Amino acid sequence: MDILEAAFHPKAIAIAGASDDRLSFGYHFVRHLLDYGYPGHIYPVNPNKQVVLGLRAYPNLTSVPEPVDYVICCLPASKVLDLLAQCSAKEVKVVHLVTGRLSETGRQEAKDLEARILQQAKKLNIRLIGPNCMGIYYPRGGVAHGYDLPKEAGTVGGVFQSGGGSELLVRYGELRGLRFSKVISYGNALDLDESDFLRYLARDDETKVIAAYFEGVKDGPKFLSALNDAASAKPVVAIKGGRGKAGTKAVASHTAAIAGSENVWKTAFRKAGVIEARDISELVDFVTAFYFLPPITGNRVGIMSAGGGASVMSADACEEAGLVVPPLPPEIKEELRTRAPEIWDWVGNPIDGSIMSAVPMGFEVVMAEMQRMVANSPHFDFIIVEITDDNPFPKDIWSSLMRRHTEGSIRLSREQRKPLVGVVSGGIVGPDRFQDCRWEVLAEQRSRLADAGIPTYSTVGEAAKAMRQFIDYWQMRAET
Amino acid sequence: MDILEAAFHPKAIAIAGASDDRLSFGYHFVRHLLDYGYPGHIYPVNPNKQVVLGLRAYPNLTSVPEPVDYVICCLPASKVLDLLAQCSAKEVKVVHLVTGRLSETGRQEAKDLEARILQQAKKLNIRLIGPNCMGIYYPRGGVAHGYDLPKEAGTVGGVFQSGGGSELLVRYGELRGLRFSKVISYGNALDLDESDFLRYLARDDETKVIAAYFEGVKDGPKFLSALNDAASAKPVVAIKGGRGKAGTKAVASHTAAIAGSENVWKTAFRKAGVIEARDISELVDFVTAFYFLPPITGNRVGIMSAGGGASVMSADACEEAGLVVPPLPPEIKEELRTRAPEIWDWVGNPIDGSIMSAVPMGFEVVMAEMQRMVANSPHFDFIIVEITDDNPFPKDIWSSLMRRHTEGSIRLSREQRKPLVGVVSGGIVGPDRFQDCRWEVLAEQRSRLADAGIPTYSTVGEAAKAMRQFIDYWQMRAET
Repeated sequence: MDILEAAFHPKAIAIAGASDDRLSFGYHFVRHLLDYGYPGHIYPVNPNKQVVLGLRAYPNLTSVPEPVDYVICCLPASKVLDLLAQCSAKEVKVVHLVTGRLSETGRQEAKDLEARILQQAKKLNIRLIGPNCMGIYYPRGGVAHGYDLPKEAGTVGGVFQSGGGSELLVRYGELRGLRFSKVISYGNALDLDESDFLRYLARDDETKVIAAYFEGVKDGPKFLSALNDAASAKPVVAIKGGRGKAGTKAVASHTAAIAGSENVWKTAFRKAGVIEARDISELVDFVTAFYFLPPITGNRVGIMSAGGGASVMSADACEEAGLVVPPLPPEIKEELRTRAPEIWDWVGNPIDGSIMSAVPMGFEVVMAEMQRMVANSPHFDFIIVEITDDNPFPKDIWSSLMRRHTEGSIRLSREQRKPLVGVVSGGIVGPDRFQDCRWEVLAEQRSRLADAGIPTYSTVGEAAKAMRQFIDYWQMRAET
Repeated sequence: MDILEAAFHPKAIAIAGASDDRLSFGYHFVRHLLDYGYPGHIYPVNPNKQVVLGLRAYPNLTSVPEPVDYVICCLPASKVLDLLAQCSAKEVKVVHLVTGRLSETGRQEAKDLEARILQQAKKLNIRLIGPNCMGIYYPRGGVAHGYDLPKEAGTVGGVFQSGGGSELLVRYGELRGLRFSKVISYGNALDLDESDFLRYLARDDETKVIAAYFEGVKDGPKFLSALNDAASAKPVVAIKGGRGKAGTKAVASHTAAIAGSENVWKTAFRKAGVIEARDISELVDFVTAFYFLPPITGNRVGIMSAGGGASVMSADACEEAGLVVPPLPPEIKEELRTRAPEIWDWVGNPIDGSIMSAVPMGFEVVMAEMQRMVANSPHFDFIIVEITDDNPFPKDIWSSLMRRHTEGSIRLSREQRKPLVGVVSGGIVGPDRFQDCRWEVLAEQRSRLADAGIPTYSTVGEAAKAMRQFIDYWQMRAET
C-alpha cells in the first residue's frame, strides 16, 4: 500500500504541539525522533516557542520552509481541523493523531468532531493514523513511539489497537530476543485501520511474523479478507481484547470500538488460521517460537530435565499441552547400556539430570551425550532443555554448571537440525535478589540462548503451550 | 506427632558421610547447619577425616562422645544397614536418608535392600525420613536443605515428595515475600510419609498454610484421612505430579511411587477441599494469596489499570477467571461528576489510568481518589492495582510515578479493610536489562508491596486465577 510505504519513509516530519514539557506527548515524540536517529528533517511546531529540544521551532506548519510529508499531531482535539487545513497547503500525505478525547469519551460533541475530522481529511486527501494512538515504531527508519525500545530491527511486525499494549509487546519481546520490523498502534482507526496495516505487513519483506491486538472493527468484510490474506502469507498471532461484559465496556471507553461477539471473533481467527493468544505474555510466548524456529509438524518432544520432580512436572505439562513424550527408543537404551551401565535401565524421557549424577563420568558428559542421542534420533521432533536452579550445589559450582549446560546446548543446536527450546527458570525478581548471582546467572543463560537463536520460556508449561500452537500452525499449513 | 517434634528440634545432629568435597551431599548438609545457625552440636562422621569444614570429625557414629538424636545419612545405600546398627547404640530417634539409588532405580536388588533397611529401622525403633530426599528446611531451627534460602521464618509449611521442587517453592516464594515454617522433602517415603507430615503441619502452630507436592501414596486410607484433617485445619494447596502417561513413568524412576489415576486424585482433593495447582508457579501464586490476605467470600473486583489496553485485558482476565467486574456504582459516578467533571461519564471499572491524565488535577490525585472510593464502596470485595510500564514517560518521571503509586496503594491498604492485590509487570529478565532501571524499579515496587503484606503477581491473569481459588476456598469454608 503506497500510502503506508510513504508513512514509514517520510522525508520530513513535523510535530504539531511540540513542547519542552517532559510530561507531554509533544515532548516525547520530538525526543523519540532524536533518540532513535530519524535521518530526515524534524520540524517542531509551536506558536509560543522558538526552540524545542534544541531544534528550531515554527509557529505553524505553513511557516516550515521545506516540504513535510508526515505530521505527528499532539494538539488538543479542538485544533485538529485547523491543522488539517495547514497540512493540505503543505501537501502532507499522512497525519498521525496522538490527539485523544474524541469518540472514546462517549460524548456526542466529541463524536461529531471526530466525524468532521474524517470528512475534512478525506476532502483534503490526507490519510490519518489514529486518533488516540501512539503511531509507529519503525527502528530501521529511526521512528519510535516509546522510550528505551530496541534500536536494532528484526522481523516481528505489530498491529495494535492499544498503544500501551504495543509497548509491552516490544519491551517483553525484547527480553526474549525478539526484534521488530514495524509496529503500529492505531487507536480509534478513524481512517487507516487494522485491515490496511495487516495487508501492508502481509506484503512487507521486513516482516516474518505478525503480532496483533484488536478491540473491534468497523468494516467486517474488509477485515476478514485482510486477515485471511495476512494469515496465509505469514503466521499471525492475535489477541482479541474485550471478550467479556466488562471488557466490552472497557473497549468502548478505550478506542470507541464495538467489541463484537467473542464467538464471531473466534470463528474468524480459526477460519483464517490466526493463532489466538489470551494476553500479552501468551502473545510474546507464541511469537517467540515463530520468530526463532524453522517449521516442524511433529509433536514428539525429548526433555532434558533438571531434577526428578522437574522431570515429572515437565512430562505432565507437555502431555497436557497435547505434545507426545515418547519413551527412550531401544537403540538409545542399547547405546546407554554399554556407555552408562549404571543408569541405562533407570533413566527415561524426560531425562532426569539428577540420575545422571550417578554416573562416574559425571552429570555433564552424560547429559550432553544423551542430548546428542535424542537430537540424532528420528523418534523425536524437537528438544526442550531445562536450565534451572533446583540443583543442590553452592553458587559458584552451580553457575559454572549452568553456563556449560547452556553452551553445550547451543553447540548441539548448531550441529543438529533438530529444533531446541530453552526453559530458563527465574521469573519474578525482587530487588534484594538483584544482588543474588543466581538470578543474574539465569538471566545470562536466557540471553545467551536468545543470542544463539533459541527461543526461551520461564516454565515448561509455557514452552509446551507455545510449541503446541507452533506445531498446529505448521500442520495446518502442510495440509492446505 | 512426637517423633516429628523430635526431628525438628534435635539437640545434636550427626552427618554420616560428612565431607570436604564441595560436590557432595556430605559437604552440603554440614555447610547448611553452619550457614543457617543450627544451635545444637554438629558431629561430622567420616572414617578418613579428622576435621570436616573446620569441625572435629569422628570415624563412626558410636565414637561420638555425646548423645545424638538426629542423623543425616549421606552414605551410599550399601552402608545404611551398618549405620542403623550404630544409630541404635546411640539411641538416635530419626535418620534422614539423603541416600538414593534404591527402589527408584527399578532394580530388584535395590528394592530388596530398601525393604531390609525398613525392616531394620522398625526393629531398632528408628524412624526414617526418605530415602532419596533432601529432608528438612526449618529456618527457625537453623536447619536447611539448600543454599541461599531465607534464614527468616514465616508461616508456609511444605510437604514435598520432590527435593528440587521444595527448593523451587522456597526460592520463588521468597521473591513474593513468602517465608516458611517447616518444609519437608520426603522422597521415597519408606517409613515416615506424606500423611505423617501433613498431620504434623495441620497441628503445627507455626504453620498457617500448607503447600504440597505428591507423586504417589502407599497407604490410601491413611492419606485420605490425613488430607482431610489437614485441609479442614488450614488451606492446603497441592500439586499432583505424574498425571499423564510420561509423568507416571517419571514418577516411578524419581521416587518409586505409583502415580495412580488422575481422577482418583482429583476426587480426593475436591472432597478434602484441597486447592489443586498445576505447577510450581501456580502453587506459589495460590499460596501467596492465602499467606497475605484475610478471608473474603465475595468476588467483585475493582481494578486500577495502567492504560486503556491494560483495562480491557484486565477485565477479560478477571471475568474469564470467574470474577465479577461490576460497573462503577451511581454514588461513585455522582461524586466524580462534581470532583472530576472531565471524566465522570467516561471512566469505568477497570479504571483506565490514561483517562485520568485528562483531569487537570492530575493522574496521581485522581487515581488515588478513585482507589479510595472503590475501597470504601460496598459494591467491591477487593481491589487489584496494576503497577506497570506501559506509560509513555521518560524513565525518571515514570519511576517516581510508579513509586508514588505504590506508596499510595500501601497507605490505602493500611487505612482500609478491603484486600488489595498488586500486579507488577516485568517477569523475565535478561542481563543487558539488568542495567535498565525500569526492571529494577518494578522489582522495587514488588518488594515494597510484599513488605507491606500485599500479595503480588506478574499479570492480572495470574492474580485473577489465584483470587478465584482463594475466594472459592473461603466460600466453601463458610458453607461447611
